[in-house]
Amino acid sequence: METPTAVPRILILGGGFAGLEAARGLAGSRAAVTLVDRQNHHVFQPLLYQVAAATLSPEDIASPIRRLLNRAANVEVLLGEAVDLDPAARAVRLADGAVLPYDVLVLATGATHAYFGHDAWARWAPGLKDLQDALRVRDRFLETFERAEREPDPEARRALLTFVIVGGGPTGVELAGTLKEMARLSLPRDFRRIRTERARVVLVEAGPRILPAFGEDLAEAAQRSLARIGVEVRVDQAVTGVDAAGVDLGAERIPARTVLWAAGVAASPLGRCLGVPLDKAGRVPVGPDLSPPGHPEIFVLGDLAAVAQEGGRPLPGLAAVALQEGRYAARAIRADLAGRPRGAFRYRDRGTMATIGRGAAIAELGAFRFAGYGAWLLWLFVHLMLLVDFRNRVFVFWQWLWAYATAQRRARLILGRLSPRPGPPSPPG
Amino acid sequence: METPTAVPRILILGGGFAGLEAARGLAGSRAAVTLVDRQNHHVFQPLLYQVAAATLSPEDIASPIRRLLNRAANVEVLLGEAVDLDPAARAVRLADGAVLPYDVLVLATGATHAYFGHDAWARWAPGLKDLQDALRVRDRFLETFERAEREPDPEARRALLTFVIVGGGPTGVELAGTLKEMARLSLPRDFRRIRTERARVVLVEAGPRILPAFGEDLAEAAQRSLARIGVEVRVDQAVTGVDAAGVDLGAERIPARTVLWAAGVAASPLGRCLGVPLDKAGRVPVGPDLSPPGHPEIFVLGDLAAVAQEGGRPLPGLAAVALQEGRYAARAIRADLAGRPRGAFRYRDRGTMATIGRGAAIAELGAFRFAGYGAWLLWLFVHLMLLVDFRNRVFVFWQWLWAYATAQRRARLILGRLSPRPGPPSPPG
Repeated sequence: METPTAVPRILILGGGFAGLEAARGLAGSRAAVTLVDRQNHHVFQPLLYQVAAATLSPEDIASPIRRLLNRAANVEVLLGEAVDLDPAARAVRLADGAVLPYDVLVLATGATHAYFGHDAWARWAPGLKDLQDALRVRDRFLETFERAEREPDPEARRALLTFVIVGGGPTGVELAGTLKEMARLSLPRDFRRIRTERARVVLVEAGPRILPAFGEDLAEAAQRSLARIGVEVRVDQAVTGVDAAGVDLGAERIPARTVLWAAGVAASPLGRCLGVPLDKAGRVPVGPDLSPPGHPEIFVLGDLAAVAQEGGRPLPGLAAVALQEGRYAARAIRADLAGRPRGAFRYRDRGTMATIGRGAAIAELGAFRFAGYGAWLLWLFVHLMLLVDFRNRVFVFWQWLWAYATAQRRARLILGRLSPRPGPPSPPG
Repeated sequence: METPTAVPRILILGGGFAGLEAARGLAGSRAAVTLVDRQNHHVFQPLLYQVAAATLSPEDIASPIRRLLNRAANVEVLLGEAVDLDPAARAVRLADGAVLPYDVLVLATGATHAYFGHDAWARWAPGLKDLQDALRVRDRFLETFERAEREPDPEARRALLTFVIVGGGPTGVELAGTLKEMARLSLPRDFRRIRTERARVVLVEAGPRILPAFGEDLAEAAQRSLARIGVEVRVDQAVTGVDAAGVDLGAERIPARTVLWAAGVAASPLGRCLGVPLDKAGRVPVGPDLSPPGHPEIFVLGDLAAVAQEGGRPLPGLAAVALQEGRYAARAIRADLAGRPRGAFRYRDRGTMATIGRGAAIAELGAFRFAGYGAWLLWLFVHLMLLVDFRNRVFVFWQWLWAYATAQRRARLILGRLSPRPGPPSPPG
């Protein structure tokens, strides 16, 4: 990267963990930093499933990006959606037509759901990537119980009270556990005609076991915890069809009116603009400085990047990976500005965790692996500490305490479909 | 009303203050009670403006109706929208075609915004009646600052940063005060190119003064408080036009990209099915037992009812009125069941309050009237106590404390327009 004498323009696309951390790392540097995101808020994605499960409200796990960066006088935040990138011209085009030139680009636009070539399934099996998704899932889940309460036909009622979650990774496991718990502990007293605790929650995984990123013993412990609260776990069963009335698993059909997708991700399409070959998931292969081949002025971070590890598999799409990559990118840019060498990115694995339900979680911290109540307390603590925003930490702590003490969900609001008046369209912008 | 030997069926339409209170009052009676609402939640409407102003989240001021009534074994809750009422057949039809017969009907479907014959204005000047409205207003308000930050033309920027609130009642006053405060105290540090504290907030009232329901001295105190924080108050100025770019006040035009409507209400259209003459606002005139002429088996409550007071003016559309009416209806129905006389409804006015901003409110408790910090503390206390749900009380208390200490708004999320993926349509119901 050449070192221009003028103030270098750093453009960051994406206000997730990677982009936000890069912006923070550049606060106070002699660069003019612009962060663009299509949402006005940063979301703490690892807790998104708790919004879907009506435990937390969107405000608990999200903060305005502007506020998170308001002390950095050299950082500016724009609400907008990047739709095109011209690496030769060093410019990004936004959906509203604006063109933003850059000297250094930090590409951190993340990933979306992948339906493995079956995009039609998206309609019946929503995924969970942003707050709008989470609110949609919450609406759908709560409405289903409302509909079941009014459904006279027992078979239709059973289909309404069957929830299939596709994908046995941490998101699928956490969703299955929390939805089953809600049906068991929070809802039963509120309905007169249905037994919500009998709601069937099925977790379907195509591979030989759930939680493949964890050790086998921990995955087994998690599966036992799920079985104990009544979640049916199906492994080695690939989904072959999804429609309005159910899910096909090869020859078997599960009638289910609610299917949630936690099975696959596809990287953001902006990676295609780079003109380099992408991996199967659409990710951009980057070198040890997180730059794609031939573009030292570009950094690709987070779920959009394929960072090779020893052993060949790229780093997983975790918040911790994205955070460390963002921090590295800021350091590398500062090194460039100072004329120092960048050094290489190295991921420090501090461990992985997943929670199954009240008092049940698994944790893998290097060679140290454990499951159960202690893991759950650790999970609570770590996630509280990771919440970027002190204020949210306080609220989430209180709400967890409350939810644990009462087994109630405070956020059981259906806000979407039954909106009595359609909103007036916004004035032309 | 005849006293059937079978269990009498009481149908309550509307889960607002009146309907919910009626249902609570009938808990444990020998009637089979069904409450129908088109939302799954009860909303504490007096705090709706704080959701619009990003201080509280929807979850703070709303609770699932089912949960609020789950201890009443003889009360059942249905999610549905009543679209037709046949008083001769004693049956209500829901939007999904279901027909609900009743022995006693409690009609408490409330009111919506009225644009005085200018329905086209609704598009540009949204009102504030439910959580969806409040989220829409929040989105619009926050987006306007985002757009202003990117607007190079100073005149267009000024129009973006001008907010007109139509209607000088408590809702209009509270909205104007809180929006101006947000622009003054919460946002300035977050923007680089605009001075949010210079945002212009104009409160327009057609009558000779704001807060006509309060004494003149208090209304003047409120107006001084508004002026002190920088809200422009215009009285005796009727709105003659609203469009995408501004508001007409007779000959004067205020260029403004955000207009909020707090000027008038029209009663729910279900009142028309009763076949009795309605008042100008579409309300149903009821007798001292809150029944319309000729229908002792029907009670009309809340914003839909016109209850004559001494002096001729009907009771105002306040939460306190609706609550007392709901309580009365339950007592009257119990009296009917026991073969006792109903007695007459009498409203006990315990006072009215409105808040203008941090540390400023007015309160009128009979002959005792006061303004300022004490009134504000009282307002806080009373509204906390009125929140139906203990849990929400705790959260709202903490959030107010936080907001007061930091001048921050925790709920500054834009959730509506920029939704990256359109939601999949719900399966056919």
